[in-house]
Amino acid sequence: MLPETIEWISEAPMLRLLDQRKIPASVGFVDCLSYEETARAIEDMTVRGAPAIGVAAAYGVVLAAHSDLSIIDDALSRLSATRPTAVNLFWSIEKMRSVYNEHKNSPELYLLLESEAIKIDKEDREINRRIGSHGAVLLPDKASVITHCNAGALATSGYGTALGVFRAARDAGKEIKVYADETRPRFQGGRLTAFELCEDGFDVTVICDSMSAFLMSREKIDAVITGADRIALNGDTANKIGTYGLAISAKWHNVPFYIAAPVSTIDFNCPNGDSIPIEERDHMEVKMIGNEILVHEGAKIWNPAFDVTPAGLIKGIITEAGIIEPSRIKELQKSTA
Amino acid sequence: MLPETIEWISEAPMLRLLDQRKIPASVGFVDCLSYEETARAIEDMTVRGAPAIGVAAAYGVVLAAHSDLSIIDDALSRLSATRPTAVNLFWSIEKMRSVYNEHKNSPELYLLLESEAIKIDKEDREINRRIGSHGAVLLPDKASVITHCNAGALATSGYGTALGVFRAARDAGKEIKVYADETRPRFQGGRLTAFELCEDGFDVTVICDSMSAFLMSREKIDAVITGADRIALNGDTANKIGTYGLAISAKWHNVPFYIAAPVSTIDFNCPNGDSIPIEERDHMEVKMIGNEILVHEGAKIWNPAFDVTPAGLIKGIITEAGIIEPSRIKELQKSTA
Repeated sequence: MLPETIEWISEAPMLRLLDQRKIPASVGFVDCLSYEETARAIEDMTVRGAPAIGVAAAYGVVLAAHSDLSIIDDALSRLSATRPTAVNLFWSIEKMRSVYNEHKNSPELYLLLESEAIKIDKEDREINRRIGSHGAVLLPDKASVITHCNAGALATSGYGTALGVFRAARDAGKEIKVYADETRPRFQGGRLTAFELCEDGFDVTVICDSMSAFLMSREKIDAVITGADRIALNGDTANKIGTYGLAISAKWHNVPFYIAAPVSTIDFNCPNGDSIPIEERDHMEVKMIGNEILVHEGAKIWNPAFDVTPAGLIKGIITEAGIIEPSRIKELQKSTA
Repeated sequence: MLPETIEWISEAPMLRLLDQRKIPASVGFVDCLSYEETARAIEDMTVRGAPAIGVAAAYGVVLAAHSDLSIIDDALSRLSATRPTAVNLFWSIEKMRSVYNEHKNSPELYLLLESEAIKIDKEDREINRRIGSHGAVLLPDKASVITHCNAGALATSGYGTALGVFRAARDAGKEIKVYADETRPRFQGGRLTAFELCEDGFDVTVICDSMSAFLMSREKIDAVITGADRIALNGDTANKIGTYGLAISAKWHNVPFYIAAPVSTIDFNCPNGDSIPIEERDHMEVKMIGNEILVHEGAKIWNPAFDVTPAGLIKGIITEAGIIEPSRIKELQKSTA
């Protein structure tokens, strides 16, 4: 059974987050009672995954409003500054800011903010279902697929984006064999995707990130599908580090490479991948495993959390609005404006 | 200071191996007094790296001869069966077998075997120096290079193949910046290459295997150079898992990809990469880090220790006989026959 990634306990109020740093060793939760605790849970990756971060941040604003209406501005700033790459965070913060700006003086402000956050949360699940049903048609029966990082129920309000596509394909009666890249340095594939899919009864094989190219040369892979943290207007896509190399290998082997992500992942203000800020994380993520220092103290470390896959390597972006060619992302701007 | 990878203590006799499983946390040694201890040290990767395995196995035969001349056949078989992919092992065992077959009844047999093993050991160092000087001309001053796994002094009798090229370039007055892939699952890049190059005063940056493609897109990389475990007659090359994906990324970014390896790495009996046996190692290498299980018990693991890079992705093979185009490997057969 898959635990809830994000649970809003309205009576408290309290945001209960599945502690993703502990999986698969244990299933525990972190309860956030303030926006600051929520911000820290995003920073330290208790909660992660672009859509899930957006939902958690929205509830963080509600927690701020509950404690003191005068700190909402601070909360919006603080939560925005937690992580730089995933745009769903900013999209969600902007939604909350609009409600705040429009109803600043309303006695209903708290309830209006809470209902906006709940709407963002619920809509995310529905959006994932629609992504799943659009994407499922791309996979044949007995498909073998590769995914990277975790773009599943654990990265969203539930169901998942890339993993939602596999779920929907299975619901449509297809047998799906999933290869999960372990996803260094934080092992979200080995830890989270394997956990999520095993608990859900999928056939999952974990490989090191460096094995996917060799796998494609030795076995028929029908598709590579990953999530996204930010999609630029030209279709260039930032996602977990390693996605770009995986997409190059897919191209080399004529395996179609897809992104599965909600429209809120598209940054219509971002012309191309070069404009996407790439978070660099703590060097200890690479240097240390458990209590053991792996790397000589004299060595430098480079630890970008994301990379950019150019639009040309992406066959399609699977959204709730359908499967879109990266070069046609711009057109969505009109329809969602 | 870099400790000796392999030391033969003739008086004992004893084979002292640097325990590469402990680096960089501690520098310790394993003393092998028998061929069986030597075989186990190869299997458990106390000693690793194609040329170093060949040298260690040769000394293992000497240890067998010292204890009992009648077990030499057993030792040759046992040592051959330790690891399947690196061909230098079989090449070295065959050299020892020839001496044995030719001098079976000689009272000098032990000394002849010992002197053959010492010759293999010493020649390996000299060969590496020649590989280095051939390869050094490929690198400009202020070169940035990527390497994978450890093809250094720690993988050979000393100096190294790929890392020998960097050493020779530096000796020729060039500044070399090395990016070392950490090399999952056993972290030979993070553990060994970073240790070896830091101790030798190089500028080393460790990256996860999944970062090299993004690195090539963001920074000018002058070359990718790795070692090899077996080179087929058509130039296809088996090396540590991840080499193939790295070579594809190099091709995509127009970065020249080279293999640095002694001629003994060429298997003239192997027509192409499909004929190279690929060792699959223990799933726990992927599933567990330190004492922590990373991956859900329901997940499968695929853990090939090597992959095959097709000749078409390799710009040149840097050997002691010069830099050879993969398509011309066959011609070496005549010259070495």
